[in-house]
Amino acid sequence: MKHFRKELWFNLPTRRGFVNITSELQSCLRESGIQEGLLLCNAMHITASVFINDDEGGLHRDFERWLERLAPEKPYDQYDHNGYEDNADAHLKRTVMGREVVVAVTAGKLDLGPWEQIFYGEFDGKRRKRVLVKIIGE
Amino acid sequence: MKHFRKELWFNLPTRRGFVNITSELQSCLRESGIQEGLLLCNAMHITASVFINDDEGGLHRDFERWLERLAPEKPYDQYDHNGYEDNADAHLKRTVMGREVVVAVTAGKLDLGPWEQIFYGEFDGKRRKRVLVKIIGE
Amino acid sequence: MKHFRKELWFNLPTRRGFVNITSELQSCLRESGIQEGLLLCNAMHITASVFINDDEGGLHRDFERWLERLAPEKPYDQYDHNGYEDNADAHLKRTVMGREVVVAVTAGKLDLGPWEQIFYGEFDGKRRKRVLVKIIGE
Repeated sequence: MKHFRKELWFNLPTRRGFVNITSELQSCLRESGIQEGLLLCNAMHITASVFINDDEGGLHRDFERWLERLAPEKPYDQYDHNGYEDNADAHLKRTVMGREVVVAVTAGKLDLGPWEQIFYGEFDGKRRKRVLVKIIGE
Repeated sequence: MKHFRKELWFNLPTRRGFVNITSELQSCLRESGIQEGLLLCNAMHITASVFINDDEGGLHRDFERWLERLAPEKPYDQYDHNGYEDNADAHLKRTVMGREVVVAVTAGKLDLGPWEQIFYGEFDGKRRKRVLVKIIGE
Repeated sequence: MKHFRKELWFNLPTRRGFVNITSELQSCLRESGIQEGLLLCNAMHITASVFINDDEGGLHRDFERWLERLAPEKPYDQYDHNGYEDNADAHLKRTVMGREVVVAVTAGKLDLGPWEQIFYGEFDGKRRKRVLVKIIGE
């Protein structure tokens, strides 16, 4: 069995944002030399997400509004977590979007459907944060 | 390490619906000959889901109503994504339900709890769509 | 390829609660002897969750209130599932929190970010329930 590990780092200038990381993950896979197996990609922070959806700006604005409706950022004092911190909403938003994706590796490629794109979802940005890529297989 | 890949196709006559795919996945596992490992099953479309829950009609109606409350289909123009398309709600609903499941394979069987059943969740049907099954192990 | 399987049992005295299981999973990993691979941990019940987030009491109270807002326990008769049972809300809450986590195993350790802690999430307790741990790798 082969295995591969890499961290991808981000530093978004805004509190929230989505970054398409599909091509970076394809590069990781090429670097690993693994042809058949599974790729795990997860946020290493609990206020960020890795998820799969469409790379379409309108949809991303819909996600932003929808997450703000489900788990509003403000007022900060609606959350017990917010004393020294103000990011309770980011923990809830990431829960909706998910921590991780597992993607099949087939014939040396990410085995994705035609519209599947992999995103880093930031919900408490303006600082350096990272994502873990782990691939196992042969 | 052994590996196995198969696509399952669906064409639901309605916009939304749930299909129990547990026995199809058991067939895939038998076909693979894998005894110990992990099975990944994911929607290859971003308006569909693979999830695990109870095979009970009342609960499925509860899911339908609940998802409509969290991310209503109409009015279509509440979503920026809906210009040429009308399926923004399907992207959000699938996010709540999840893209994929990872199931343990033990002694040649899906290692599920007594009530765990695996479903394909359709949120934008009336066309051919597919699910990926990838199994690795030995 | 090596593989390891274990069940962890719980019996919470309350309907809902979170239990930090990170150190139990580290013990499983040591017992397995696996150095590189993937660890799957999933609830074997469809009214419970395994998820990763912060071990902070304020945040856990926020989760409890937030889940009650998204999928209230009462009135019981708002759900079709609740005839002989009263736990429809638990199925919905667990859907938000997720069934499973997949964690990378690197150099014999759970490859977690500094604040990532793994929790069992109970939404219909007061009875014995269990979680599956499956590790594959080498």
